[in-house]
Amino acid sequence: MSRAAILELLASARLGRLACVQGSQPYVVPFYFIYKNNSLYSFSVLGQKIKWMRTNPLVCVEVDEVVSSQEWLSLVIFGRYEELPDTFEYQLERAAAYNLMRERAVWWEPAYAKTSVHGASRSLEPVFYRIHISEITGHRASP
Amino acid sequence: MSRAAILELLASARLGRLACVQGSQPYVVPFYFIYKNNSLYSFSVLGQKIKWMRTNPLVCVEVDEVVSSQEWLSLVIFGRYEELPDTFEYQLERAAAYNLMRERAVWWEPAYAKTSVHGASRSLEPVFYRIHISEITGHRASP
Repeated sequence: MSRAAILELLASARLGRLACVQGSQPYVVPFYFIYKNNSLYSFSVLGQKIKWMRTNPLVCVEVDEVVSSQEWLSLVIFGRYEELPDTFEYQLERAAAYNLMRERAVWWEPAYAKTSVHGASRSLEPVFYRIHISEITGHRASP
Repeated sequence: MSRAAILELLASARLGRLACVQGSQPYVVPFYFIYKNNSLYSFSVLGQKIKWMRTNPLVCVEVDEVVSSQEWLSLVIFGRYEELPDTFEYQLERAAAYNLMRERAVWWEPAYAKTSVHGASRSLEPVFYRIHISEITGHRASP
């Protein structure tokens, strides 16, 4: 895929899958993001994913557009997790992330959707973060 | 999600995302599978994913059904990679995997779809494998 085709897909995509690692065990979950300035901005409730990425910031994100099993686009992104804490230093970045997400109110809600883990409801305190992109590979299959 | 709801989604799903690890770097790609006997059966051309899983068999698979950003099901599966080599010992398992995949001819083809990496076409020799499931967690969000 050309660089232009990759960036076009990335700019329009909202749903991806985010993989992180603890020790030698990977973990992958769906997440919503917005692409801007070579980064993916997102937020999450505090859970396993955030805890693991705080310890090991190396992540991989997969984004795709599947038309059929013979026709699809898929991006694999290597990147680095950076938290955007609620401090003066990160005020601008955090505001940017918040504004980007507010523009898309419809998908801003899944992290607050009713979810429970092992019967206990989770903390609803949001953690804002971005993934700095270090490498993108694009694959395309056509019939 | 109940155990029954988890298994129902798993039995009908074909597309998932498979995460593996080298060192502390995760890697996640889309893959097609069939669920049987507490395992996910699949195959792939020989590439980075297979090389990494041969070295570290710990994997994570994410399977979902997204209706909208407020309504989705998502399974996160921890498992272990096992290759099904073309030897007498694995003949039965390999035949089972092959037959399962042949039943679904339509999705058996993506691994052979025209793909290229860094301009070079890839080996088309298939590697058959299964993921032994060790743990499944299901999440559901509803509006």
